[in-house]
Amino acid sequence: MERVIEAAERIRRLEVQGATGVALTALRAIVEQLEMSMARDRASALQELDEASRILFSARETEPFMRNAVRFLKLKAEEAEWERVEELKALVRGASQELLETFREARRRIAEVGSRRILNGDIILTHCHSSTVMVILKNAKERGTDFKVVLTETRPLYQGRRTARELSEAGIGATMIVDSAVRSFMRGISKVLVGADAITSEGNVINKVGTSLIALAAQEARVPFYVASELLKFDPQTIHGDYEAIEERSPQEVWADPPEGLMIRNPAFDVTRRDYIHGLICEEGVISPHIILEAVLRRYPWILKGAQV
Amino acid sequence: MERVIEAAERIRRLEVQGATGVALTALRAIVEQLEMSMARDRASALQELDEASRILFSARETEPFMRNAVRFLKLKAEEAEWERVEELKALVRGASQELLETFREARRRIAEVGSRRILNGDIILTHCHSSTVMVILKNAKERGTDFKVVLTETRPLYQGRRTARELSEAGIGATMIVDSAVRSFMRGISKVLVGADAITSEGNVINKVGTSLIALAAQEARVPFYVASELLKFDPQTIHGDYEAIEERSPQEVWADPPEGLMIRNPAFDVTRRDYIHGLICEEGVISPHIILEAVLRRYPWILKGAQV
Amino acid sequence: MERVIEAAERIRRLEVQGATGVALTALRAIVEQLEMSMARDRASALQELDEASRILFSARETEPFMRNAVRFLKLKAEEAEWERVEELKALVRGASQELLETFREARRRIAEVGSRRILNGDIILTHCHSSTVMVILKNAKERGTDFKVVLTETRPLYQGRRTARELSEAGIGATMIVDSAVRSFMRGISKVLVGADAITSEGNVINKVGTSLIALAAQEARVPFYVASELLKFDPQTIHGDYEAIEERSPQEVWADPPEGLMIRNPAFDVTRRDYIHGLICEEGVISPHIILEAVLRRYPWILKGAQV
Amino acid sequence: MERVIEAAERIRRLEVQGATGVALTALRAIVEQLEMSMARDRASALQELDEASRILFSARETEPFMRNAVRFLKLKAEEAEWERVEELKALVRGASQELLETFREARRRIAEVGSRRILNGDIILTHCHSSTVMVILKNAKERGTDFKVVLTETRPLYQGRRTARELSEAGIGATMIVDSAVRSFMRGISKVLVGADAITSEGNVINKVGTSLIALAAQEARVPFYVASELLKFDPQTIHGDYEAIEERSPQEVWADPPEGLMIRNPAFDVTRRDYIHGLICEEGVISPHIILEAVLRRYPWILKGAQV
Amino acid sequence: MERVIEAAERIRRLEVQGATGVALTALRAIVEQLEMSMARDRASALQELDEASRILFSARETEPFMRNAVRFLKLKAEEAEWERVEELKALVRGASQELLETFREARRRIAEVGSRRILNGDIILTHCHSSTVMVILKNAKERGTDFKVVLTETRPLYQGRRTARELSEAGIGATMIVDSAVRSFMRGISKVLVGADAITSEGNVINKVGTSLIALAAQEARVPFYVASELLKFDPQTIHGDYEAIEERSPQEVWADPPEGLMIRNPAFDVTRRDYIHGLICEEGVISPHIILEAVLRRYPWILKGAQV
Amino acid sequence: MERVIEAAERIRRLEVQGATGVALTALRAIVEQLEMSMARDRASALQELDEASRILFSARETEPFMRNAVRFLKLKAEEAEWERVEELKALVRGASQELLETFREARRRIAEVGSRRILNGDIILTHCHSSTVMVILKNAKERGTDFKVVLTETRPLYQGRRTARELSEAGIGATMIVDSAVRSFMRGISKVLVGADAITSEGNVINKVGTSLIALAAQEARVPFYVASELLKFDPQTIHGDYEAIEERSPQEVWADPPEGLMIRNPAFDVTRRDYIHGLICEEGVISPHIILEAVLRRYPWILKGAQV
Repeated sequence: MERVIEAAERIRRLEVQGATGVALTALRAIVEQLEMSMARDRASALQELDEASRILFSARETEPFMRNAVRFLKLKAEEAEWERVEELKALVRGASQELLETFREARRRIAEVGSRRILNGDIILTHCHSSTVMVILKNAKERGTDFKVVLTETRPLYQGRRTARELSEAGIGATMIVDSAVRSFMRGISKVLVGADAITSEGNVINKVGTSLIALAAQEARVPFYVASELLKFDPQTIHGDYEAIEERSPQEVWADPPEGLMIRNPAFDVTRRDYIHGLICEEGVISPHIILEAVLRRYPWILKGAQV
Repeated sequence: MERVIEAAERIRRLEVQGATGVALTALRAIVEQLEMSMARDRASALQELDEASRILFSARETEPFMRNAVRFLKLKAEEAEWERVEELKALVRGASQELLETFREARRRIAEVGSRRILNGDIILTHCHSSTVMVILKNAKERGTDFKVVLTETRPLYQGRRTARELSEAGIGATMIVDSAVRSFMRGISKVLVGADAITSEGNVINKVGTSLIALAAQEARVPFYVASELLKFDPQTIHGDYEAIEERSPQEVWADPPEGLMIRNPAFDVTRRDYIHGLICEEGVISPHIILEAVLRRYPWILKGAQV
Repeated sequence: MERVIEAAERIRRLEVQGATGVALTALRAIVEQLEMSMARDRASALQELDEASRILFSARETEPFMRNAVRFLKLKAEEAEWERVEELKALVRGASQELLETFREARRRIAEVGSRRILNGDIILTHCHSSTVMVILKNAKERGTDFKVVLTETRPLYQGRRTARELSEAGIGATMIVDSAVRSFMRGISKVLVGADAITSEGNVINKVGTSLIALAAQEARVPFYVASELLKFDPQTIHGDYEAIEERSPQEVWADPPEGLMIRNPAFDVTRRDYIHGLICEEGVISPHIILEAVLRRYPWILKGAQV
Repeated sequence: MERVIEAAERIRRLEVQGATGVALTALRAIVEQLEMSMARDRASALQELDEASRILFSARETEPFMRNAVRFLKLKAEEAEWERVEELKALVRGASQELLETFREARRRIAEVGSRRILNGDIILTHCHSSTVMVILKNAKERGTDFKVVLTETRPLYQGRRTARELSEAGIGATMIVDSAVRSFMRGISKVLVGADAITSEGNVINKVGTSLIALAAQEARVPFYVASELLKFDPQTIHGDYEAIEERSPQEVWADPPEGLMIRNPAFDVTRRDYIHGLICEEGVISPHIILEAVLRRYPWILKGAQV
Repeated sequence: MERVIEAAERIRRLEVQGATGVALTALRAIVEQLEMSMARDRASALQELDEASRILFSARETEPFMRNAVRFLKLKAEEAEWERVEELKALVRGASQELLETFREARRRIAEVGSRRILNGDIILTHCHSSTVMVILKNAKERGTDFKVVLTETRPLYQGRRTARELSEAGIGATMIVDSAVRSFMRGISKVLVGADAITSEGNVINKVGTSLIALAAQEARVPFYVASELLKFDPQTIHGDYEAIEERSPQEVWADPPEGLMIRNPAFDVTRRDYIHGLICEEGVISPHIILEAVLRRYPWILKGAQV
Repeated sequence: MERVIEAAERIRRLEVQGATGVALTALRAIVEQLEMSMARDRASALQELDEASRILFSARETEPFMRNAVRFLKLKAEEAEWERVEELKALVRGASQELLETFREARRRIAEVGSRRILNGDIILTHCHSSTVMVILKNAKERGTDFKVVLTETRPLYQGRRTARELSEAGIGATMIVDSAVRSFMRGISKVLVGADAITSEGNVINKVGTSLIALAAQEARVPFYVASELLKFDPQTIHGDYEAIEERSPQEVWADPPEGLMIRNPAFDVTRRDYIHGLICEEGVISPHIILEAVLRRYPWILKGAQV
């Protein structure tokens, strides 16, 4: 389990960031681990796969994208008929390849669909750093659309700075503000565009803490609020009644040297109500977040299988 | 004008903070400056006073408390009948003393009124650092009320840390969160309590950027939102149609080393709608923010006089 | 203190009902008690008055109308110059008479103003039993206005039945519904009209539990919500920061024979937000609830004096 | 038609209560009636079935669960090929059995899904008596979750008392309030959880009168409002444009002895807007009420067939 | 009564338009009529004045500005001590002059205050034609502010065209839209600015039909909505409980040639909720509409006197 | 391309009105054009079809109904196997016939479903002229339902007059108001019922300008707002990210003779938020607008094919 443990470790320590990055790392680790497998028979090979999943799942709480990807490999392995472990290896390599292709295609489609929603003269507000949002913005730039971006710094880890640097490199005009200045600028914003870490069965969106506050301020000012997300960020656990777990990170990120007795709470994410979301930009196109379950079942009919209940 | 210039400089460089601190510094500077005055006659003495006002007014944009205080001295000087400059000095010293007494009494009253609104078991959310809020919280603690505080770090200058240290010293249990986590914690909050930098004639409140976002989130969750403020933070310019100026501070406070081409906007304050404010805690007691004009005219009938139109 | 104690007892046991009834009973008890007073000097007479107040104040928690009335007598007694107790007796009799006249006039004015807001064809929703609302409805009927009433039964004490009987006697067509059917009928309602037990300095209204829910449902359906109340129901304690106390009554009223371990909570009143109140119908006329403090200070300038702080 | 008439009678007189109870009674009556059938041929047997349906449908207006169940038997009978009435009897017995199994499984699933939404420390508000809600609460208790319940008495028939007794027996801590105190307690509530009598094609929920008022108050305070319901409570008539009929019950339930001329209106149910519903807990899991039509078509593809248009 | 009757006629036929125009016409008519008076004694002179008022009041329903002006003259006449009718003539001329001066000063002040609220780059939405709004816009233009106007055509009488012509003459850039396109343009609007025909004691504003719809759309998009109005448009009847009468005009204005049986309703005004109004721009400055009663009593203490009850 | 060009011209000049009229005209033109076709082989025939589509598509911007219809013919032609152009002609005639049948059936179903939502005593508000709404109203009338209609005149082209005439002919009682009087009458309205020109993938509705304002006012007053529309008005372009184009028409329609320098903007449509729509009445029945995508995919699985991306 060396490769898998190492990957899980890198995910846990945030060396790998972003839902997509984490999913890709996990996939690769499983494929590589399996290549090195000494398993002799079906039972022990599947057991290995199981263990690998468990290790990866324990790395971070809020990672449905990675979990769906890993579960897909397991389902393929469990459902197919094979006898030799070599067959399994090929099969898992194939499934991993298929998934990567699906990812790429979904992202390409999201970039295209999302960039059409950006018009000349638009001022787009974004929060944190989302690779999905970045491909949309770059795609719009490449199409020749003339727009600007307002972005938050995103405390405590300042992921907004990464967004700022990428926009600067892409030649997209941008203005940074502190997180709490969002309402001051909202009336001048054309659209809000953020990514997602998870989507629940009711259509709510889990994303970087502060997102729900931006959505609320957008709603107050009639500014359309878009979420760009691969459908595989849908969390099948939520349909079974589980709440999306909200990872709580180290107080040190907020204040390294607090006074005695001060508690620091540092949730990484918050939940944005589906009613505040104008549209979900996904590989289906632009849809209402209310129908996420329908869209995900149409595209990925296997999604509810094997979710832990 | 040495003393006055120096005071203005310290105010500009933020060495003096908080509306009250700034007002006191300005009062003291005028009194001291006047003591050293060489003016021989009424005209030149009043002219000196005028110049001193102008210098102090230019130190920061959003300081109605200081402006009202300075204007009060000027009105006293202009309206009284005196001949010798010595008489003026005594008069201004007296007016300054009267104002200080008014401040102290207002604050004492606010502490008493405000602390009655805090009940056993309450969890109070506050933002930034407000000395008015601090006296309320400490007063409630001294009364033996058992409550807790949730506070924001308040980017970009982290004034929340000062609040945290003072609460820690006062033995009041507190939890710090990043500014954008406000909505995540709102449902557990009993009341929000913030200070004010200025209040407009329509009843809107200018306070540290982020306040209006908190007020919006409080409104969404039916959490009472209180503003604690001396009535002298009322800005008489606003009744004449002027907007409250929102100071915009240095980008360096937000990011010292931004990438090429990135703009940074750093407004210090924002405007909270009167409709989101449950009550204004002032020297009148707890009132609706809509009637700020009536309350201030009842207490300080001179307030509209001499405002620049 | 016999008379006063007896009156307090009857108030406590709810033999006297309604803010007005309670205030009148308290006034009468004080006057009668004083008539029997053996006090020889100013000090002991005032002390007796003080004790009488304390006894009456302790009878029920939410009775600002009675408290304001009693306080008025005390203020008159304390502020006037008199030497002989006989003088005091005359003075208090006179003050009581003055107050009764004020009550009558206020009610007459409210009846007139309120009944003008009722138009032919209106369907008026009311809750609980309010003598102030009843005089308005009867006045409108006497003017020949053709309207109907929808009323709630008002659990747990079914005060709606008293309202129903009085409407029946007055020949006003009425329909009773259970409390929780209010939203089902709201779209057909022309105006809501309720009384008040207390009004806070911020303009919120304390009335029979359920009132705030009706106000919310009226707001949702754009139905104007009126409160009819004498200005003397303003509670001066609230401006000093106190919350209006919400009396909690016996669980027996709700269920005489509950299963083991079941808690029953039975608050008598709730708080209606000023923002849900279209107009306050009082002796000033129809006003915004936000300016209650201004109106009450204009009519009863003594109102803040002597409130316990 | 003896058995069927008797069952209909018991349903009409409310001896059988709750959507589930009514559906089971109707199913049993049909099966028993059929066992006794003297019908000789297909046509007359189907005609008998038809008549039985009509009789049962007329028992109460708002019973889509029962209607769907009965319609399922009829569809099975009509669509299958059979010749002898004995075959039909077996077929209907089987269909009834299948449906009972579906009910049980749906309920088991709802209990499991719903109980996961209840967390330690939660305070759950419920209204009326819902067997679906009860299985969720009991399941959560059995899982060891530490939570409390606030419940309304639910006038006019006090079904809340039944809920209170069951909670008491199950050892779940509970507090009862009158219906109109709901807003007073709302800010302390973690989640609202109610049952349903019917769900419309647009996603609105018909439940005991008062439910929509609770939903409105929950929305005002950002308290999640859940409806627990089997998908078979979907009313297929509504997609055809019919409004869900709202049964109006006897005035005697409200007041046995009203004054002359007083009308009493006593609707048994009201309609809760889909926008006030955070999630529908059904056999699919937790879903948005907006997609009820999709969920019900996926599970019960026969649901729209045979609805009277 | 010739002059007065003729004036009333011109007002009725809309030859005189706008609240200000109507008030001026009425004042002039009274003064002129009085000049021609043959009255010999106080009683008959006052009776003439009374009759003149009645005639003018009957000309149009919604004209508090005119009514307040006329009532002011009558109050002056009734309260002063005079014997000869010549004295009365002088007195009324003087009062009329005083009122005209008050009007001019109020308008000058409104123009100044209002124009400060218009900033460079603003896009101001207005509705109908308001001379008060026009002086603000022209004043802002004269100050050198660079702004644009969006205006509605204002069916049925197209008063927007008059506004358009005046803006064109003043060199202010303007765009006209149909009334129902208001929401399509709202997100690009900086502020809404409209006039008023009447203001009620609760703070609601009566203005050209469509105003309340614009206010609603402004509220939805967080666009500040300002009303510019002289305080004398306050209607003292409303505090006494009367509703502001909404004049209903001829169907011919809407459609000269309707099909048989079609009803046409043509109300001239509607009522805008005080909660949708950001600020009232009046001679006091910018105030909350909630305090209209306080402001009007402070400026015009006679305003409630002599209103018909 | 004569026939097609002529049809496109008539559509462009608005000689053909209404989404349905336009679609039928386009279908007929294609069929007729094809009948006259000289094409010899598959490639050139398909190319002709392509060109015909392009011409028709360019006639007006907001016509998804027509585009879907034309695309259906093209898909049929492209997907079928045929060799001779005669076969194609038959095939396209057949497809056109099939589509006409689908239209008729959809409309019949909408009339039936929609008319069930109209109850005795209802007052229905409608806007502009919609043939879909008209069939519902007439159907309700034929069923004997007793209801009335309030309708707007619908500037700038007064389509409300056409609605008025048709209602008059149908013997349905109606009242016309100007567009901006909608809020004045809203509280008396039972339901709003409008048509649609297009529906987006998120569930928003494009209809005659002013519709969204009516929806907003209906929402404010809790009046159910229904849209009646064939599902084929769904615009597949929107799922790909395109905004629905909003046609902007000639300024002349608004004002033939504007003053120099006045701009006139004349958008023909606006966008109504799905959250303001109570129900979509379509051939599925009454559904939530959020699930439009699901409904349209279920009925017209080909709908997303061939949309230009």
